[in-house]
Amino acid sequence: MSFGESHGKAIGGVIDGCPAGVDLSVDFIQRELNRRRPGQSEVATPRREMDEVEILSGLFEGKSTGMPIAFLVRNQNQNSKDYTHLRELYRPSHADYTWEKKYGIRDYRGGGRSSAREHIARVVAGAVAKQVLAGYGIRIRAYASQVGNVVLTRPYSELELERVEENMVRCPDPETAEKMIALIRQMREEGDSIGGIVSCLIEGVPVGLGEPVFDRFQARLAHAMLSINAAKGFEYGSGFAAASMRGSEHNDPFVVRKGEIHTATNYSGGVQGGITNGEDIYFRVAFKPVATIMKRQKTVNRAGEVVELEAHGRHDPCVIPRAVPVVEAMAAMVVLDLLLEARMA
Amino acid sequence: MSFGESHGKAIGGVIDGCPAGVDLSVDFIQRELNRRRPGQSEVATPRREMDEVEILSGLFEGKSTGMPIAFLVRNQNQNSKDYTHLRELYRPSHADYTWEKKYGIRDYRGGGRSSAREHIARVVAGAVAKQVLAGYGIRIRAYASQVGNVVLTRPYSELELERVEENMVRCPDPETAEKMIALIRQMREEGDSIGGIVSCLIEGVPVGLGEPVFDRFQARLAHAMLSINAAKGFEYGSGFAAASMRGSEHNDPFVVRKGEIHTATNYSGGVQGGITNGEDIYFRVAFKPVATIMKRQKTVNRAGEVVELEAHGRHDPCVIPRAVPVVEAMAAMVVLDLLLEARMA
Amino acid sequence: MSFGESHGKAIGGVIDGCPAGVDLSVDFIQRELNRRRPGQSEVATPRREMDEVEILSGLFEGKSTGMPIAFLVRNQNQNSKDYTHLRELYRPSHADYTWEKKYGIRDYRGGGRSSAREHIARVVAGAVAKQVLAGYGIRIRAYASQVGNVVLTRPYSELELERVEENMVRCPDPETAEKMIALIRQMREEGDSIGGIVSCLIEGVPVGLGEPVFDRFQARLAHAMLSINAAKGFEYGSGFAAASMRGSEHNDPFVVRKGEIHTATNYSGGVQGGITNGEDIYFRVAFKPVATIMKRQKTVNRAGEVVELEAHGRHDPCVIPRAVPVVEAMAAMVVLDLLLEARMA
Amino acid sequence: MSFGESHGKAIGGVIDGCPAGVDLSVDFIQRELNRRRPGQSEVATPRREMDEVEILSGLFEGKSTGMPIAFLVRNQNQNSKDYTHLRELYRPSHADYTWEKKYGIRDYRGGGRSSAREHIARVVAGAVAKQVLAGYGIRIRAYASQVGNVVLTRPYSELELERVEENMVRCPDPETAEKMIALIRQMREEGDSIGGIVSCLIEGVPVGLGEPVFDRFQARLAHAMLSINAAKGFEYGSGFAAASMRGSEHNDPFVVRKGEIHTATNYSGGVQGGITNGEDIYFRVAFKPVATIMKRQKTVNRAGEVVELEAHGRHDPCVIPRAVPVVEAMAAMVVLDLLLEARMA
Repeated sequence: MSFGESHGKAIGGVIDGCPAGVDLSVDFIQRELNRRRPGQSEVATPRREMDEVEILSGLFEGKSTGMPIAFLVRNQNQNSKDYTHLRELYRPSHADYTWEKKYGIRDYRGGGRSSAREHIARVVAGAVAKQVLAGYGIRIRAYASQVGNVVLTRPYSELELERVEENMVRCPDPETAEKMIALIRQMREEGDSIGGIVSCLIEGVPVGLGEPVFDRFQARLAHAMLSINAAKGFEYGSGFAAASMRGSEHNDPFVVRKGEIHTATNYSGGVQGGITNGEDIYFRVAFKPVATIMKRQKTVNRAGEVVELEAHGRHDPCVIPRAVPVVEAMAAMVVLDLLLEARMA
Repeated sequence: MSFGESHGKAIGGVIDGCPAGVDLSVDFIQRELNRRRPGQSEVATPRREMDEVEILSGLFEGKSTGMPIAFLVRNQNQNSKDYTHLRELYRPSHADYTWEKKYGIRDYRGGGRSSAREHIARVVAGAVAKQVLAGYGIRIRAYASQVGNVVLTRPYSELELERVEENMVRCPDPETAEKMIALIRQMREEGDSIGGIVSCLIEGVPVGLGEPVFDRFQARLAHAMLSINAAKGFEYGSGFAAASMRGSEHNDPFVVRKGEIHTATNYSGGVQGGITNGEDIYFRVAFKPVATIMKRQKTVNRAGEVVELEAHGRHDPCVIPRAVPVVEAMAAMVVLDLLLEARMA
Repeated sequence: MSFGESHGKAIGGVIDGCPAGVDLSVDFIQRELNRRRPGQSEVATPRREMDEVEILSGLFEGKSTGMPIAFLVRNQNQNSKDYTHLRELYRPSHADYTWEKKYGIRDYRGGGRSSAREHIARVVAGAVAKQVLAGYGIRIRAYASQVGNVVLTRPYSELELERVEENMVRCPDPETAEKMIALIRQMREEGDSIGGIVSCLIEGVPVGLGEPVFDRFQARLAHAMLSINAAKGFEYGSGFAAASMRGSEHNDPFVVRKGEIHTATNYSGGVQGGITNGEDIYFRVAFKPVATIMKRQKTVNRAGEVVELEAHGRHDPCVIPRAVPVVEAMAAMVVLDLLLEARMA
Repeated sequence: MSFGESHGKAIGGVIDGCPAGVDLSVDFIQRELNRRRPGQSEVATPRREMDEVEILSGLFEGKSTGMPIAFLVRNQNQNSKDYTHLRELYRPSHADYTWEKKYGIRDYRGGGRSSAREHIARVVAGAVAKQVLAGYGIRIRAYASQVGNVVLTRPYSELELERVEENMVRCPDPETAEKMIALIRQMREEGDSIGGIVSCLIEGVPVGLGEPVFDRFQARLAHAMLSINAAKGFEYGSGFAAASMRGSEHNDPFVVRKGEIHTATNYSGGVQGGITNGEDIYFRVAFKPVATIMKRQKTVNRAGEVVELEAHGRHDPCVIPRAVPVVEAMAAMVVLDLLLEARMA
């Protein structure tokens, strides 16, 4: 459960169902939040907010108590008046039009509730989930695998994922990272934006997560990923490439390694019949280019009149670098939820 | 809610929350079911079952009463003994291994609960949802857009979707359909299988469906699609192609047409900020090649011994033709659920 | 999840989430169903239906598979035309008026979905839950503790609950049972009906069931009990009597017995702070007199005209005897649900 | 969703699903909160906290936006060290023992999460619900109808409910109120506590609320009421008295008044077949005497040793006066939830 608007008092959330007795580091939560923070690098929006998390409940003497963990991050620039010109018009490919039609009212300041600032709540909750999962040997790591036409083609098994944080685009391959950064810089200069793909690897998940038939592991993961702002697609294992494969090449033969049953290949992406099979889980999430661009655009206002719109400063030309921790956070919550539903935690 | 195993007594389900007072045609439900029925054409499995639906409750004098609508389809060949040889072994890329590990027990006959026969329940429920949606002017149509390397590249707006049922592969372009059928025939002859993609168009959805922030329209749709057997990926609107697009080309400008606000292009796929915007909704679902192939494969059994497996007759070499009505059914349920949640029905 | 109408094709349900690998006796389920069956004794309605249960799914070789267990009981007299005279009028203190206003349509035959025949589904599901709970040493037994002014005042600890089935009113005290039966007979002769109370004891529940703060054990139990037809009130432990008690007499002192912590008294009814404390759980459910009586009554019809109504034969003058297994069934489902939610099963 | 512990940083909650566009007065919310506030009168605990509510989200220019409304009330005395002596022992009839056993950890300061301070969140959310309901002409008023043996026997229709706030025990009958207050004073002097009953009237509810069969109106209400601290029983309409009534006296005959269908009597308490029938809804909730008393009590500690316990100052001898607004708040949430589920709001 998350709450809060971009320019309201705070963004926050309540985590319900966290197991009791887990050591939870607030420092770790803050560090994860810093990975999503605006203004952290040249390729991210220069809007600088401290985004400091406060835990309100559910923690006692450093441990979770099993009770709801509420938290909040106060917004710094809540009183800014930058946004009044957006009151009457609908920005292209933003939520302005649909939210206003659905609710009859919208907080137009910085996108209000539809702003990606809402992701703060997800990162905090994900940081809690990650700490619980660590106790079960489960690790989740995402990275930039595509920005525009710059594509990281090597499979995850050939990458050094511990290097993800070494560059500001969060691509584990330094050479590709350079190209991605160059492209994002170019977009910034041109006042344009660019899409991309985040890939994610989940290691250490035991056999048995996923609840057939409607709550298959991949269904829950897809739900979570498509709930992220700007996400346009999801695939796991072989994904869309499976469409042009044959069964004889796609099937993952079972083999025995060190006395345990494994699969020789992993086109299944760690999930068979909707249930995890103990292999690595990997998936990819496509993101559209940011809708806010620095170019002049035509749009319409409430009265149905054509108007011109031009955004100013302070926006990411590409969501990918800051989407990486959000993808990880959502994945962590899905895995922990299903671990609990399977009564394995 | 669905229930039933491939070789148990019946497959069925209970539809909860269907609005009262809707005229429901059982004939229409049966016709939809016939579209999914095995043995309906040369490219589908020759296993012939009548799959006749019986409605048990929730209908009175031809109308829904608002009460749960229960239905069942009796299985014809429930006593077959074809499957005892599968008792001890794990078929590659099937659910055998994961379900047995999760539950400690599995109905090994024809995949049991993990069989695609479970989709019967979805098609029946979807046929009810379609009838309710028709009253709101909402229409859902899916079609085969890729089988192996045979790709239908033309966008939905250039296709004659009313021709989908004219060929057995359910591709609205006759020429492409022929190529798809030829490829599936080849797979059958080679004892192999092939993947593909189903595309789907939803027309007539009003502005306002989708519940921010976690139950965005696309998140619910992705959840539903990835819960279908063999589905590997989902994308809507521009989808994965958005990754290499710029904001200036991807943004959908608002325009006024006939006094109503629309978008000039529709890369958004009918959804903005997680809420439908009144434009056409379109999305694609990738499916893997069927895991059951007629070639000899190595696998392991419960004891961890390597064994050989060879399937016999009676299996679709490609799920795409019969997945088309399942995709439509799941889409119908998602749209109706969100219409009800938005209190617009 | 239950489905079905009194005079539709069948009453049934689907049990979701039953743990896998439990030996389930269909005979036991049928025996429980027989306890609720109409026409079983002189004090119950003479309407005779066999109420034979058929299990459709979720069972394999006598064990639960973890998959949904669907079941149905076909209605015998579904084509009867006894009820057309009820089409236009609203019986006093029945669901006729409210359901018609809410749904705009109702199956008027025998109360349709609002009939107590729906309880069949609860008894079947409860019989499954009881079998699962038996594996954890949990036992649930209800009994008639009041019929009209005939009150069984002795506390449960002084009763021989194994004698409940010895008389047709299901009161464990033979003397009180006789008086209850006499009163019900008198009601039948007078064409009237009478209310009563069912008491229930749950033994063997471990410490820890109940999910604070909204899903306290007693809250879930109250929800379940008030969902039974004709139920008017719920109390647990000291119940309404607590209103006139002092803290110094009501508090249950902790003591140590055989090395384990217990309470010396049990006004708490086995629940403290919304969580079971390992002591006996006991509660009481009040039922109103059956609304269908053999006396002439005035009421109104759809047109708002005053009309006369007189029921004929075939109705219980008191729900208590047949409510006993329903109370047990609902209690069993609540306990099992909370055992699963606490991840203790 | 509520969060927070008695001596943590704050008590708060998040209201999800509040309709958009409703004028919400924060002043009204604060006034409702003041009715529950400790130290408000001589019969309530002298522990003085301001309990000031802060709304964090979901409100824009004084109106609800349809987004989650988060709020919090900071605790004033969170750093007190009064409670360390409770760390090792289990207070009789408190949640200490069960919560510690369930979670393995507990915030022992002032009962932590099990404290009645959690009701703050309910009162705030209820105050929001009340404002929404007022727009539909629905009004909810509760009052003290019993304290110990002091019983208000007159039915609600003979009472002047607008006088409830005139005395500190919240009994609308001044004479009975005096007796109640005298009894509570006596309890305080004796260091003891006393139970009681809160009655509640809901007026203006339209026909049609309640979702058969498991979410009947009364089932949801019972669930909500039994989730309140210290509640021991619930009854609606005739309640437990129905047990000794006959059908011929209990049935509510339908009549036509001013062209509308009503019932002549209202033993049904405004609900028939689980659905509201448009008549007044009334119900009663029994509360146990407060477990914290100023008398010396024996109990055991973690080590299983018998220890003595004696509480000091600052506790209500009777929950009834401050339970009145909590009962109203929970009722308001149930009614609004069901109004929304029925798609009537």
